[in-house]
Amino acid sequence: MGDNGARVLERIRVPAGKKVKLTEYPTSWKKAEEFKLNGLKLTKDNSKEILEKSKGELAAAQELLWAEDSYSMLIILQGMDAAGKDGIIEHVMSGVNPQGCEVTGFKTPSQIELDHDFMWRCYAAMPERGRIGIFNRSYYEEVLVVRVHPEILIGQRLPGKEKGEKLWEERFESINDIERHLTRNGTVILKFFLHESKDEQRSRFLDRLSDTEKQWKFSPGDLAEREFWDQYTKAYEEMLSATSTEHAPWYIIPADQKWLARVMVAFVIVRTIESLDLGYPQLSEAQKKSLGEAKKKLQDE
Amino acid sequence: MGDNGARVLERIRVPAGKKVKLTEYPTSWKKAEEFKLNGLKLTKDNSKEILEKSKGELAAAQELLWAEDSYSMLIILQGMDAAGKDGIIEHVMSGVNPQGCEVTGFKTPSQIELDHDFMWRCYAAMPERGRIGIFNRSYYEEVLVVRVHPEILIGQRLPGKEKGEKLWEERFESINDIERHLTRNGTVILKFFLHESKDEQRSRFLDRLSDTEKQWKFSPGDLAEREFWDQYTKAYEEMLSATSTEHAPWYIIPADQKWLARVMVAFVIVRTIESLDLGYPQLSEAQKKSLGEAKKKLQDE
Repeated sequence: MGDNGARVLERIRVPAGKKVKLTEYPTSWKKAEEFKLNGLKLTKDNSKEILEKSKGELAAAQELLWAEDSYSMLIILQGMDAAGKDGIIEHVMSGVNPQGCEVTGFKTPSQIELDHDFMWRCYAAMPERGRIGIFNRSYYEEVLVVRVHPEILIGQRLPGKEKGEKLWEERFESINDIERHLTRNGTVILKFFLHESKDEQRSRFLDRLSDTEKQWKFSPGDLAEREFWDQYTKAYEEMLSATSTEHAPWYIIPADQKWLARVMVAFVIVRTIESLDLGYPQLSEAQKKSLGEAKKKLQDE
Repeated sequence: MGDNGARVLERIRVPAGKKVKLTEYPTSWKKAEEFKLNGLKLTKDNSKEILEKSKGELAAAQELLWAEDSYSMLIILQGMDAAGKDGIIEHVMSGVNPQGCEVTGFKTPSQIELDHDFMWRCYAAMPERGRIGIFNRSYYEEVLVVRVHPEILIGQRLPGKEKGEKLWEERFESINDIERHLTRNGTVILKFFLHESKDEQRSRFLDRLSDTEKQWKFSPGDLAEREFWDQYTKAYEEMLSATSTEHAPWYIIPADQKWLARVMVAFVIVRTIESLDLGYPQLSEAQKKSLGEAKKKLQDE
């Protein structure tokens, strides 16, 4: 391929057990051009071509996933407000056959969702074999927004005494256990944290507020959440440290450069599907014979 | 209470880690009258009275579960054909408010169910807080019928190489992990294996075949499954040994005497809800004041 994608992957993939400090992960890559993907230097000018190539490969890979019908893929997108989650979905996944891809967004839980354990609504939305499921936010909010605003727990009506820090450890364990179960049964899990700087968020919020076509994306609650930036950073660090596993790794994507984030996410997905080493189903001799007969019958019609 | 329910529980509850041999658990209790439940000797004559008392307590306990709204209860019923699962549901649960109780039967999985991991359809059916959910068969079939007939696995299209025995160990682990997650989040799990002898099954099948009102319950497939009695026994033993845990214990219920099975299941459920030490929600002073004002307003109308 003439690229060095492996080096890129190594930089953004969180090894299992690593204690993550987000300051060690840049939100933009100043020297991205020192890396190559799809045979091209990682520059903004090249990014469209790199992304197009990845998107073509992604569409083909998804078709193979569908034909082979053993694996599903779960892609989880997490990040602060305006980190670019919607943009990733639009620009990376737009080439994929919608029949093989479904996006689920998780907003404030409904009453019936609150009346079940925190995994329930996400479990119901797990992708079928052959399909790619994208979670725009996910059960990880249960150790992020809920951790920053623990008063949300009251609505979850958990039984028993106050558990303190143990509650989050238990949630990490539950998440790791369930992800292990899913991967064993054929769900390939990829998790992307879109890592945005506080300055970049400010600038994107100002954009939204100034552009009449983007104003609908801004809610005053976004500013209130921004006040909790440091608490979110800490919650993300603990989550990334506790839940990046061999079977379901986290990738920390530099999100201040949108072009770079999109190129990287597409590349990770393609590489992961390729590593499954899928093949189109092989026909048995009996099946081939039967197809030959069908063909002859149609020709003779 | 003047009974010795604790001794009964001890005999039928499978301790975590115990290696179960089913020959050590009787399918009927010859000397049941040496035990007392609800203050009465365990005899067939007394069983109606004992059961009625338990059913009254069960209805009250379920109401408390509903009012307190922190816990849900999951009751799993497993057993060979004609072990009495339907009878348990009918005769034990009939006093409970249907609004607080839901029964889900799991038969041959549909295509969309097969296109997900084996827990998916059961996870979706988990009871809400405040309710009792009964699974008539469950995900445990995945380590029972599927283990006895491993050709079923082909339809599940699991990825990767043949795993052999490891597959069942992984399934046991997944089940224990997910049950632990559920109990932490408020689902109390009780699992009943209705332990029936091969002779008793023969006699119940003959009953069904002779009684025009029961014939619909018999399918020729039942006889085919009976041929696999020893394989099922082994699969049940391994399942009971691997998945009886502190948080989600198995109870082995002597099922040849229907009256005894019903009395015991009802007793276990009531005792378990009692052990949660639930109370009706206490009103705050502000709430009491507001109720007082409402009452006055209605009286003055």
